[in-house]
Amino acid sequence: MEKLKKYVSVKDEDQFYHQGAVELLVFNFLLILTILTIWLFKNHRFRFLHETGGAMLYGLVMGLIIRYATKAPDVESGTVYECEKLKSGPPTLLINITNQVYEYQYKREISHHNVNGHQGNAMLQKMTFDPSIFFNILLPPIIFHAGYSLKKRHFFRNLGSILTYAFLGTAISCVVIGLIMYGFVKAMVHIGQLKGWEFHFTDCLFFGSLMSATDPVTVLAIFHELHVDTDLYTLLFGESVLNDAVAIVLTYSISIYSPKENPNAFDAAAFFQSVGNFLGIFAGSFAMGSSYAVVTALISFMHLTKFTKLCEFPMLETGLFFLLSWSAFLSAEAAGLTGIVAVLFCGVTQAHYTYNNLSPDSKMRTKQLFEFMNFLAENVIFCYMGLALFTFQNHLFNPLFIFGAFVAVFVARACNIYPLSFLLNLGRKQKIPRNFQHMMMFSGLRGAIAFALAIRDTESQPKQMMFTTALLIVFFTVWVFGGGTTPMLTWLQIRVGIDPDEDLKTEAASQSASNLDKNTTKAESAWLFRIWYGFDHKYLKPILTHTGPPLTTTLPAWCNPVAKLLTSPSAYGDQPKDDDTDYIIDNDELTENYESSAHIPVPAQDRTGSTQATGKEDIHEGDLGLGGYKLQLEHTAGQPQMNSLA
Amino acid sequence: MEKLKKYVSVKDEDQFYHQGAVELLVFNFLLILTILTIWLFKNHRFRFLHETGGAMLYGLVMGLIIRYATKAPDVESGTVYECEKLKSGPPTLLINITNQVYEYQYKREISHHNVNGHQGNAMLQKMTFDPSIFFNILLPPIIFHAGYSLKKRHFFRNLGSILTYAFLGTAISCVVIGLIMYGFVKAMVHIGQLKGWEFHFTDCLFFGSLMSATDPVTVLAIFHELHVDTDLYTLLFGESVLNDAVAIVLTYSISIYSPKENPNAFDAAAFFQSVGNFLGIFAGSFAMGSSYAVVTALISFMHLTKFTKLCEFPMLETGLFFLLSWSAFLSAEAAGLTGIVAVLFCGVTQAHYTYNNLSPDSKMRTKQLFEFMNFLAENVIFCYMGLALFTFQNHLFNPLFIFGAFVAVFVARACNIYPLSFLLNLGRKQKIPRNFQHMMMFSGLRGAIAFALAIRDTESQPKQMMFTTALLIVFFTVWVFGGGTTPMLTWLQIRVGIDPDEDLKTEAASQSASNLDKNTTKAESAWLFRIWYGFDHKYLKPILTHTGPPLTTTLPAWCNPVAKLLTSPSAYGDQPKDDDTDYIIDNDELTENYESSAHIPVPAQDRTGSTQATGKEDIHEGDLGLGGYKLQLEHTAGQPQMNSLA
Repeated sequence: MEKLKKYVSVKDEDQFYHQGAVELLVFNFLLILTILTIWLFKNHRFRFLHETGGAMLYGLVMGLIIRYATKAPDVESGTVYECEKLKSGPPTLLINITNQVYEYQYKREISHHNVNGHQGNAMLQKMTFDPSIFFNILLPPIIFHAGYSLKKRHFFRNLGSILTYAFLGTAISCVVIGLIMYGFVKAMVHIGQLKGWEFHFTDCLFFGSLMSATDPVTVLAIFHELHVDTDLYTLLFGESVLNDAVAIVLTYSISIYSPKENPNAFDAAAFFQSVGNFLGIFAGSFAMGSSYAVVTALISFMHLTKFTKLCEFPMLETGLFFLLSWSAFLSAEAAGLTGIVAVLFCGVTQAHYTYNNLSPDSKMRTKQLFEFMNFLAENVIFCYMGLALFTFQNHLFNPLFIFGAFVAVFVARACNIYPLSFLLNLGRKQKIPRNFQHMMMFSGLRGAIAFALAIRDTESQPKQMMFTTALLIVFFTVWVFGGGTTPMLTWLQIRVGIDPDEDLKTEAASQSASNLDKNTTKAESAWLFRIWYGFDHKYLKPILTHTGPPLTTTLPAWCNPVAKLLTSPSAYGDQPKDDDTDYIIDNDELTENYESSAHIPVPAQDRTGSTQATGKEDIHEGDLGLGGYKLQLEHTAGQPQMNSLA
Repeated sequence: MEKLKKYVSVKDEDQFYHQGAVELLVFNFLLILTILTIWLFKNHRFRFLHETGGAMLYGLVMGLIIRYATKAPDVESGTVYECEKLKSGPPTLLINITNQVYEYQYKREISHHNVNGHQGNAMLQKMTFDPSIFFNILLPPIIFHAGYSLKKRHFFRNLGSILTYAFLGTAISCVVIGLIMYGFVKAMVHIGQLKGWEFHFTDCLFFGSLMSATDPVTVLAIFHELHVDTDLYTLLFGESVLNDAVAIVLTYSISIYSPKENPNAFDAAAFFQSVGNFLGIFAGSFAMGSSYAVVTALISFMHLTKFTKLCEFPMLETGLFFLLSWSAFLSAEAAGLTGIVAVLFCGVTQAHYTYNNLSPDSKMRTKQLFEFMNFLAENVIFCYMGLALFTFQNHLFNPLFIFGAFVAVFVARACNIYPLSFLLNLGRKQKIPRNFQHMMMFSGLRGAIAFALAIRDTESQPKQMMFTTALLIVFFTVWVFGGGTTPMLTWLQIRVGIDPDEDLKTEAASQSASNLDKNTTKAESAWLFRIWYGFDHKYLKPILTHTGPPLTTTLPAWCNPVAKLLTSPSAYGDQPKDDDTDYIIDNDELTENYESSAHIPVPAQDRTGSTQATGKEDIHEGDLGLGGYKLQLEHTAGQPQMNSLA
């Protein structure tokens, strides 16, 4: 008899294993369907529903099926057992049930009012996976890829505007949404819809910060396909990448904002502490991410006498690159910082330094690996968002709140784009035209980050209402705005079909024709960034990569012994040993000129089905470092102090 | 006050998140260290300790640190709580502790005698991760990679021997180990070491089956580096790949062997049921794996009139390839079959058919992706094996059992290799020489699979003893035999430094010099496989890939309409429309000739730091399909019936 029981329990355990397989199979099936649909869409140039929207739709249908076609609720789940002996929830719990000890693992704390939600069936419970999976597994590759494939040249050209939109814009958006929502919440209280639970202004701000994370994956994919104007593309891409980081840290700072007394009153000390938290976490994560990338660059650059370089072993190189980048994320998380922000800046730094040291094989491997991970993670997230509408068990639909949120999101986006564009245009030589502003306004889609931030905490009723609302806004924006991108582009008469190489060529031509025109395109490379660029080019690049001038020429004479030690032998080439401490012009632009004259063809593997932009520009930079440097000297000789006017 | 508590609990939850990050960070750190060590080893041609052994050593040291340098045991864990209301363990448990509801997730059932083992500290508990992670996440990429990178040509040349070693050999090994262990167990009972718990013959057989899974990753990596004789390499590689599959299914069949009465007595019905289970599961998994691969091949081959081919979108292609291969694993698991076996045959079939349809970009992407995943998974497993010695909390060291196991493993390996080699040499034209047999005997390392099978169930005391013993055998074989591979090769005078291309060239030369010599190398392609090859080449390859002759020429005349529909337009090239139904010679060998005359240089990316063999041979096959076919016709014209002698 006892033996029989043993076998039964083994079977039960097997059932558990297989359950996991079934859920993963459901996801695989959805992803396969999505890929086949993307293929179909690619063939029919079907743009009313984008692939991300398609993935979401499949998820929705699957969620519907799981919800209504699987077995009836389990009776036992949903019952709360008492335990007087325990004082707090231990990580593991051993329970003796009918003389058999079972081990239970702590999952989470749940509020009393959510207990009923747990009476759903097992399949539903299994399909709503742990929110931490989003943050720890699905988001990092997406964010890293965004950083790694950043089109540096265009990015730095528009850096001022991008930073303004990302930092100031996100803050504006957060506050505007918070204020509008607070108005609606007051109205709800007035009607009597919020009986029994509180909704503070900080909750409204929390909602504002999480809804401020824009995610124009869909729009950018379409832009990339249609070859929309590069400046518009860069503005949107740069804004969305940085804005995610800002929104995440902002949300975290608000969630730990704890005023001492009345949570509705303004507490200056707590407010400044939150601002301090924000700055501290942001700076810390930035430092953590970049330092891991610098370590990677140093290791891949290492040239010890008796050692074969690491780039002789592409697999080891790729492995190290992957592990160190992931460690940046994990270390930041372990240190209480924001892993996503760390991994973003790690990606940017890796692309800027380490990429130049990698062997050609590893360059391709790392690019393809992260591209692939990004592709999968993105589709999983969109499928899951669709699924969540039906499988998540604690939805709280409140029409007034949802209506308010829609209004708030659009007003906030307008308050972000139009006033900031106006201000930026005062400073920019190359203005951001009206139609670009409308397009940016229109491209304020909400996606993965907003969803991930909302699902992270769904315990209290306000948080559940926020989650439901965020989910609906994501659906609406991805389907309606995502689908409307192409018509909108036509309607706003934004030029498409621009070959980025052609674009640069014309620019380069006009630049060489009249050197003074340069100020119009270089308008934004303000003095701070030019100083940074000089420093980067003269000191950091030579120390961390094979490119740039030898350190012996850039460091003062008394540093020569150190400089010799640090400089790679390959840096001493046929380079002129001129004193060039007075040039300020940046490296990117010259690389640009060099590239456009060399007219390097676009490599075939970039024409992939990726839904993200691939940053093919950075491929050449490393190789052209020396060329760029030489060109630079010639350039600066002709017009020595010219850039200081800007 | 309540608010404060809320914040504390939020902090607790954060602590949980960060805990996860810390553990992953430990693994990342170990892997980074391993990679740096591999790099060091590559530089110093250091072969006494192989990289896998190094990974294990690092794991061991880290385990030691975690065990003795982390905080003291948690008091609360280890206490068993009573719950009279429950009748069985529900998947989730809601518990009310001091007016706060906590959700607990079912982890496993534990025996009473293991409860004490749970008094370890939290870090130790976290580091011993779920055994199902091995089976569901770490093993599939390794096994798939093995199948995908199988050197088909050499594999099929030695298929008979490989199958004999894998099926018959594993069965012999299992029974021999089982019998010897049963002897030792009886002795232990006699001394009185096994008081209070039973150890049946089926348990011994279970141990025998799990210890029969050889894993010569280390040996093969060294072979690959040293370019050891290709036939020896193939015999070992083929044996170990298939033997894993056999051992896994065997272990599963034995674990569900349930004699009705006395578990020690022989129950014929139950025995035959187990044999039936074995065959059914093996065949089912094989069918599941291959059919997913066939679906992939069909999709990637699809040529609808208005459709762009999938190979125009390498990212989609790679994604689909990856997802369908993974689905093969998951479906098999969900259907109660063995996922690992399914994924192995899926890999083989993917390499054979789908690979030919992929775009050049996807060919590289898939190869590099799986190579990378294999590399990471392998190193994680070896690190974890090292860790497990100190972090696993229910070790049961029994010197007599361990001694017995060492004896049994070596005797069983000898009973597998020597008698079977003798029998095979009776049939083989190209004998397996004595020194190859010794080398195969010596290469019977135990590794990941044995470990994974042992850790899957560590509830009862016999299973714990088995796990501890298996772990020690893995350590010993990897360190001693892995480290001794190079000296052993020298001692056995096995030729090294063979350029596979050179090898083929000489073979091809000798073959063309004397056509009759062919029988010596083709000796093993018995009639069954030649029939299969003819069928594959004439029907399957044309239906599933772009290679092979058009179906219109291979199918009977009355099938012409169907054939025309199924044949790819590219198949009608400048191919002669001869009637070639009478040739039997296989395709691989001709590709070989073609290749060796073309003398394609080894691509640079194959010189990677992978610890697995990369199957560069298959790269060319797809491209050369037509060439091979043409050559074939010329060949067969000269010596029409020759192969039927063999």
